[in-house]
Amino acid sequence: MRYSIVTLEILIPLVNNLLHFSEKVLSLCDHPALLDKSETHALYSSDAIERAWQILEKIPGRATGAYSHSQGVKGLRDEIAAGIAARDGFHASGDNIFLTDGASPAVHMMMQLLIRSEKDGILCPLPQYPLYSASIALHGGSFVPYFLDEEIGWGLEVDELKKQVDEARSKGITVRALVVINPGNPTGQVLAEENQKKIVEFCKNEGLVLLADEVYQENIYVEDKQFHSFKKIARSMGYTDDDLPLVSFQSVSKGYYGECGKRGGYMEVTGFNADVREQIYKVASVNLCSNISGQILSSLIMNPPKVGDESYESFMVERDGIISSLARRAKALEEAFNSLEGITCNKAEGAMYLFPRLHLPQKAIGAAQAAGAAPDAYYALRLLQATGIVVVPGSGFGQAPGTYHFRCTILPQEDKIPAIISRFKEFHEKFMDEFRDVSRDEAPTGTTIESGGD
Amino acid sequence: MRYSIVTLEILIPLVNNLLHFSEKVLSLCDHPALLDKSETHALYSSDAIERAWQILEKIPGRATGAYSHSQGVKGLRDEIAAGIAARDGFHASGDNIFLTDGASPAVHMMMQLLIRSEKDGILCPLPQYPLYSASIALHGGSFVPYFLDEEIGWGLEVDELKKQVDEARSKGITVRALVVINPGNPTGQVLAEENQKKIVEFCKNEGLVLLADEVYQENIYVEDKQFHSFKKIARSMGYTDDDLPLVSFQSVSKGYYGECGKRGGYMEVTGFNADVREQIYKVASVNLCSNISGQILSSLIMNPPKVGDESYESFMVERDGIISSLARRAKALEEAFNSLEGITCNKAEGAMYLFPRLHLPQKAIGAAQAAGAAPDAYYALRLLQATGIVVVPGSGFGQAPGTYHFRCTILPQEDKIPAIISRFKEFHEKFMDEFRDVSRDEAPTGTTIESGGD
Repeated sequence: MRYSIVTLEILIPLVNNLLHFSEKVLSLCDHPALLDKSETHALYSSDAIERAWQILEKIPGRATGAYSHSQGVKGLRDEIAAGIAARDGFHASGDNIFLTDGASPAVHMMMQLLIRSEKDGILCPLPQYPLYSASIALHGGSFVPYFLDEEIGWGLEVDELKKQVDEARSKGITVRALVVINPGNPTGQVLAEENQKKIVEFCKNEGLVLLADEVYQENIYVEDKQFHSFKKIARSMGYTDDDLPLVSFQSVSKGYYGECGKRGGYMEVTGFNADVREQIYKVASVNLCSNISGQILSSLIMNPPKVGDESYESFMVERDGIISSLARRAKALEEAFNSLEGITCNKAEGAMYLFPRLHLPQKAIGAAQAAGAAPDAYYALRLLQATGIVVVPGSGFGQAPGTYHFRCTILPQEDKIPAIISRFKEFHEKFMDEFRDVSRDEAPTGTTIESGGD
Repeated sequence: MRYSIVTLEILIPLVNNLLHFSEKVLSLCDHPALLDKSETHALYSSDAIERAWQILEKIPGRATGAYSHSQGVKGLRDEIAAGIAARDGFHASGDNIFLTDGASPAVHMMMQLLIRSEKDGILCPLPQYPLYSASIALHGGSFVPYFLDEEIGWGLEVDELKKQVDEARSKGITVRALVVINPGNPTGQVLAEENQKKIVEFCKNEGLVLLADEVYQENIYVEDKQFHSFKKIARSMGYTDDDLPLVSFQSVSKGYYGECGKRGGYMEVTGFNADVREQIYKVASVNLCSNISGQILSSLIMNPPKVGDESYESFMVERDGIISSLARRAKALEEAFNSLEGITCNKAEGAMYLFPRLHLPQKAIGAAQAAGAAPDAYYALRLLQATGIVVVPGSGFGQAPGTYHFRCTILPQEDKIPAIISRFKEFHEKFMDEFRDVSRDEAPTGTTIESGGD
């Protein structure tokens, strides 16, 4: 291979390590004896030392090595709830927080509780992050897909939800919950507030649990969109804890922090009655508790340094630097894809992904079939072989029949993006030349060559 | 309540924090910028700094915040395998190690893979740590109990295994695996080598997967017993990787380290064919990876400081101090229990528990029935109310019909044990006086009053 492998897939952390403030606090909590030593002030900022003290005070016996309550350390949950309340402008309670080893175990926990048999269905977007299909399969339920509409920027239309629910019910499936990923993975869209209201209304009317994957809440790259949690939307519509069962998933793996190796996260669980809450707690307690470092980090992302803290300015510089760099990377990749023959790409409004569509020539589709591969998998493999660039075929996420895509992250270092783009372009142009259905001379000027099934 | 609550249950850590060596290494790995600063040498020992360097070198990109391989960081797995090989005297491979967030998720993973329907059964000891019954229930399988023999120090008899397997098979259950907890939880026994050989032979003959819960491997308190891993036993019998599917679970939550809040652990998986291995890996990958701090700590417990390292002597003092203190606590509690009317208690050979038997007066059993509680639960509640001491009723672990027990840990601080014992004795004597079936004067001298069903 001529190149070293560059992954446009999420195998690399967002930054090489924690933001410096979090890094220091965790380091102190791991080795609390440091807090009593004067030399420590030479190595750690005063607010990191202060925060470590505060955190240790919240942990019974100051024992970061002990099991915690199965929902997580109460003081850390309260801190997270305060962060949620500040974000949303509505009350949140630490009693509703379940700290978990990243968002994935929280999703599994809810699937385990919701799915009784293959007659129970969970509505999930297509394309979707395959955690959902995997978890539903593992727990023996039915995956009920709804399609995001690529033509309107991967919009989530309530008519489509209704159609799919009715169809599932006609097959004897009890649809129990709706999964919404906002901002979207792998599709990168940010839902509009009006759209979210309709989704809440739909769940209320249909008696569905709303499972809101909100792990990309800090990753917004466009001026005209903002993140609104589904809980905020529901409360702003006047719905209380009695009206709508709602679970919001959050993770330390995304945002500007990107600390996926720490396995921290939480779910905020509202709108369930006491009996069901008891069952959620029982399932949480089977694995005793989530790791305490992840719990601490979850509290730090929901309560970052504030104005006046020693680390505030450097924290904001790091944070804004990362988010604005991600926005520039997203824009550069999106523009590059849209400049190419046979590729169209929606705007990356949020999350960490682009999901460009490949309008593959019929000849390429034929070559893929001959090779026994899905057309987009064939394309991705050829790309990898020619350039060392890794993308994930759309067929891994699900897509409308007859369409082909790939997911690429916006995570490579910003200074490497131009070189990646030029390698990608070179490959793509050669690929299109190799498989063009008609020769350049014969093709009408300016037309895009599209694959069948559009 | 007159007393503050003292738990004889495992809600408190073994030590208040990590052993100092591990604590320092983790603190440095969390904040690697420290490694470049001269002030760091005032706060951290040279071998902790050296080890942190070595660990970071094993992690691609030195990124402790990134996802790792779904089995865990390869370099750390290799280090663990070297530790296993040194322990057993037989080859171990990092490719067979799956790092997990504590041992519990590893157990769930294996149950998920082994259980296809309620017709699949898993042989588990009674009494048993209820993780197993919970996991089998969650995954929809059948719990097939075998009874440990209290009369012979909670011995595990192959005749009993055979009897239970035959009985399960006669009911149409496919028995797929045998769970052995060694040292035992909640029973504290350490299996003899000869006994282990018979168990291996039994699994081989019956075609069972051997699931060896070996998380208490460092917790041995008697001169005449040693820990032998089941893999070592199988290899010493000449069985190779082709002969016996065997999974060994290990955790950072037990041993002399007791770092349960870190959620670190691993399973060593041997004797499965490539197809099955692939499925294990697939399930592991659904949650992406285990937390990196837990992975690092797992490598540290399997590769502690060595002779010549700066921390070696202080590490050994801490380690031996903890183990010998636990042995003294176990002995003090066991002797106290055996000194009491109506309690008999096997020796705590290992693990962290005693499981004394309550020979309750008929009148106490009647009072429990009137209160709608299991007799040992009634006893434990009365104990809690009178003294603030928490123990877990034997009915939570399963026990031979008509027998009553409770589990107590040996974890309270050593200097508190005498006071706990005297409070316990005072309660117990009053309880026996309150419920004595016949008056002291009428009872034949020296008889123990036993409950029905013996």
